[in-house]
Amino acid sequence: MDTLTVALGEKAYPIHVGSGLLGRSEFLLPLLRYPKTVIVSNVTVAPLYLKQLAEPLRQAGIDVAEVRLPDGERFKNWQTLQTIFDVLLQSHCERTTTLIALGGGVVGDMAGFAAACFQRGIPFVQIPTTLLAQVDSSVGGKTAINHPFGKNMIGAFHQPSLVLTDTDTLNTLPDRELRSGLAEVIKYGLIKDLSFFEWLEANIERLLVREPTALREAILRSCRNKAAVVIADEREHGERALLNLGHTFGHAIETGVGYGEWLHGEAVAVGTMMAAELSLCHGWLLRVDVERMENLFKRAGLPVYGPRLTTERYLELMQHDKKVQNGRLRLVLLRALGNAVVSDSASLNDIQSAILARSPHV
Amino acid sequence: MDTLTVALGEKAYPIHVGSGLLGRSEFLLPLLRYPKTVIVSNVTVAPLYLKQLAEPLRQAGIDVAEVRLPDGERFKNWQTLQTIFDVLLQSHCERTTTLIALGGGVVGDMAGFAAACFQRGIPFVQIPTTLLAQVDSSVGGKTAINHPFGKNMIGAFHQPSLVLTDTDTLNTLPDRELRSGLAEVIKYGLIKDLSFFEWLEANIERLLVREPTALREAILRSCRNKAAVVIADEREHGERALLNLGHTFGHAIETGVGYGEWLHGEAVAVGTMMAAELSLCHGWLLRVDVERMENLFKRAGLPVYGPRLTTERYLELMQHDKKVQNGRLRLVLLRALGNAVVSDSASLNDIQSAILARSPHV
Repeated sequence: MDTLTVALGEKAYPIHVGSGLLGRSEFLLPLLRYPKTVIVSNVTVAPLYLKQLAEPLRQAGIDVAEVRLPDGERFKNWQTLQTIFDVLLQSHCERTTTLIALGGGVVGDMAGFAAACFQRGIPFVQIPTTLLAQVDSSVGGKTAINHPFGKNMIGAFHQPSLVLTDTDTLNTLPDRELRSGLAEVIKYGLIKDLSFFEWLEANIERLLVREPTALREAILRSCRNKAAVVIADEREHGERALLNLGHTFGHAIETGVGYGEWLHGEAVAVGTMMAAELSLCHGWLLRVDVERMENLFKRAGLPVYGPRLTTERYLELMQHDKKVQNGRLRLVLLRALGNAVVSDSASLNDIQSAILARSPHV
Repeated sequence: MDTLTVALGEKAYPIHVGSGLLGRSEFLLPLLRYPKTVIVSNVTVAPLYLKQLAEPLRQAGIDVAEVRLPDGERFKNWQTLQTIFDVLLQSHCERTTTLIALGGGVVGDMAGFAAACFQRGIPFVQIPTTLLAQVDSSVGGKTAINHPFGKNMIGAFHQPSLVLTDTDTLNTLPDRELRSGLAEVIKYGLIKDLSFFEWLEANIERLLVREPTALREAILRSCRNKAAVVIADEREHGERALLNLGHTFGHAIETGVGYGEWLHGEAVAVGTMMAAELSLCHGWLLRVDVERMENLFKRAGLPVYGPRLTTERYLELMQHDKKVQNGRLRLVLLRALGNAVVSDSASLNDIQSAILARSPHV
């Protein structure tokens, strides 16, 4: 097992990464001060892993309530969130009750937001079971639900007390979900870690066949990168925005085609290619850099062209994104591979060209 | 005009109290960094005061959107909150857009919670128009909505950037609402300011006839008391809980009879009398103290006996309150007039007796 710390002062917390962690109640028990907890999972993950997690807790005398959410991004809304609140209240949870999120990014974001709001904030633990959640959404305290007009529009910054990453849970992850997670892994290399990008170029096939040592290395390097950014800028006043590389375009794709049609990582891969085209147009990236990126995404089994959406629709959706400031789009672009910057210098024309360059040719 | 500061470090903010402040845009304009704002009000307050507030802003070039919520505690729920998010998104609000709450406690709590969650937090200003909001809910950053199982169950700590208290708005406040606000004013005296309690015994009639200097004095002393507690304990880990004197019983009344049937201050007055009975039973208060409290509440036109609810129903509702810890009810009791303490020492029997002592005799 490896342990990283997200050094956020009073709110510091450990990320444990390893095999067989799910059943090791010694990590959780010290956090369950009142002998009660609620595990939030979904209908896909719960049958696979919930018992393994809950049983040792129950044996230790903890009263464990369960919430099984429907599975999918399209359920990441207020109606679903209510079902968590209902159980928290029916179980007489208190301000000191710790909530546990067991699942992918949607479960983690919703359970985290429920914990942020319930009685104005209760502690929670992230147990991510998808690669995407393990390398990205479980770390850093961003929680949210979607609004019909935009992704993650309603949310809170609420740091977990612990992230428990059991790499065994990746064994049951569908291939498409694994590939989606790799988009975020590649993102860290592009943003600030060229040597990690090169490591990925050398090892992407090992990750696709789920070689445990390769997966563990990728998760650890991703979390280390993410933790460094979060520590420097918890509430995204500056540097943290770099983590949104590809996300403004990507969110437009996810919202534009309807939540859940495209997986998050798929949309981010295409969005990152759009950001690459814009960076090329700024003279920051070379064509050969863009091709390296395209090749790596393709080898990872990810799309590099978007869905059939008009550029007008993209722009409309991007106006709702949280990255708009003073009416100008603030986009994450690449000065070079491994060096991302936030920029509002792109003209509307250039943005449209970048979208078109990565839209399907009719 | 008088100004108090809630000295919360980076989050410090001023409370301006005075006459004619609503139309003085110089307080608001420096906070509206992007020339756009959304004013959240309700259908009762908006026709009276919204134009007075919005017009000078529009003349200064600010794009002002408006949300008019339905009026009443029973609308303090997620459905109503959605209407705020819808306008924020339709108006293309950004992370730097400042939201303005114009109204009583319900408007302030909902607008504040919307500001806390929208894009994970945007700035907001409180412009309270009821006595209750001016002396209590607008100060201290507690925001929330209700859940069918409990009041203020879903919320956030989110401090305003400014509180603007225009005492002229009290001229249109219905008598019953004025009296409801006086319950919270009396509360501050009971908790930690005996000389303020005595001042109220001497001046309550001046407040009831809305004598401006008396109202201003009561508002300032209340806000000063509240600010001191909030500064010492922003997130209610300790002392801030004292502000909940009468509220655990009071919330049970509000939820038990249906939101909006009893005004908040009315329920708090009765709840405070129940806490007084418990304090009497502990030997902390004397019968003569309880009578002084009862007399002041009665002179303020407030009820001192609760609705027809069984003690079982009270206890069930109180179990959902945020003041439960390790399954025991933590109640605010009075060691003496002007000296409140948090205590979990009351037995179930004593709590039932206190409820019965303040329930209507059949």
